[in-house]
Amino acid sequence: MSTEPQQLHRLTRKTDRGGDRALLDEVLDEAMVGMLSTVVDGWPWSVPLLFARIGDDVIVHGSTGAGMLRHVAAGAAVTLTAFVVDGLVVSDTLFDHSANYRAVVVRGVLQPVDDPATALTALSDRIVPGRSAETTAILPKELAATIALRLPVEDGKWIANARTGGPGVETDDWTGVIPMRTVYDSPITYTGRDADVPASVSQLAR
Amino acid sequence: MSTEPQQLHRLTRKTDRGGDRALLDEVLDEAMVGMLSTVVDGWPWSVPLLFARIGDDVIVHGSTGAGMLRHVAAGAAVTLTAFVVDGLVVSDTLFDHSANYRAVVVRGVLQPVDDPATALTALSDRIVPGRSAETTAILPKELAATIALRLPVEDGKWIANARTGGPGVETDDWTGVIPMRTVYDSPITYTGRDADVPASVSQLAR
Repeated sequence: MSTEPQQLHRLTRKTDRGGDRALLDEVLDEAMVGMLSTVVDGWPWSVPLLFARIGDDVIVHGSTGAGMLRHVAAGAAVTLTAFVVDGLVVSDTLFDHSANYRAVVVRGVLQPVDDPATALTALSDRIVPGRSAETTAILPKELAATIALRLPVEDGKWIANARTGGPGVETDDWTGVIPMRTVYDSPITYTGRDADVPASVSQLAR
Repeated sequence: MSTEPQQLHRLTRKTDRGGDRALLDEVLDEAMVGMLSTVVDGWPWSVPLLFARIGDDVIVHGSTGAGMLRHVAAGAAVTLTAFVVDGLVVSDTLFDHSANYRAVVVRGVLQPVDDPATALTALSDRIVPGRSAETTAILPKELAATIALRLPVEDGKWIANARTGGPGVETDDWTGVIPMRTVYDSPITYTGRDADVPASVSQLAR
């Protein structure tokens, strides 16, 4: 493997869409699911997974039985890519249609986390805030079945970019943006019909 | 580059979550944004982009000025990965929390499309259905500035998988699912305040 190509570390086009660390954190904190990509025997490989940012680390996890996770745990170079689509940009010509989005790429090598229980708890609370306080702690046998890894956010090893606003054309025709967002609907009960819905669930789904 | 590893072509864990071609098409038709991943000088590279399935092809496009797009247009192996998150699975133990999702990976080499104008029009209509009929056709100079590529969906070169349902535990505690979905809000007008909102926009955003 050669030296990492520098053009992977920066925007080479539409540099006006480049963002700062605040944008990186915003997207990492909002996207929830990211795409982890690596190279296996020269071939690209990519899977979606839940992740959470904790400070300067992106935390991912999975089963110790997952061969690909073992591959990236052993030091393969990875990218973690995530995005949020904020809207569709409708112009007067088909060519000028676009999408408003926020997107990030973090490059590096995954490292073991120092404290898997804390990392996995933080990951859970990222998905359903406050849920860890309502459940028993992760058991040692559960920890033993899990790989928890962190991707450090290092200077010069990430890109954040975004498109915002309208189509930017001058016309008397209608142009605009159709905003998009993700919503949570009312929870569906599977067990415990006589039990209260947990506060964390009510909070998220209201 | 060695022969493509066969484990990239099939699920090696949780094979009960494997899906058929109908699931593949469903996710490709719903996700709208996918992640295109490839290998550059031995390093992983991945970017989010709009895509559309047309029959047995996944269509992607971009500017002829985009270096990475030229890289994949020149025959590099790629993966196109896409997912939809359908809900959060809340269990009684932190460890058994999960997410309901549908995800796909299509592997292959991108090919030029035979008819870029048709492909780009189809891509636009995938994003805002019916919009192409309301605008003028793509101009020759616009076509010349655009690369349109197709990733063929070939037997044995894709994976679709999904998780559905509740946490699958027996307990008197409350467990359940918080459904998630993407919604479109009312359109924001940028130009043409005196013009009617196009039917395609009203239809999508209502």
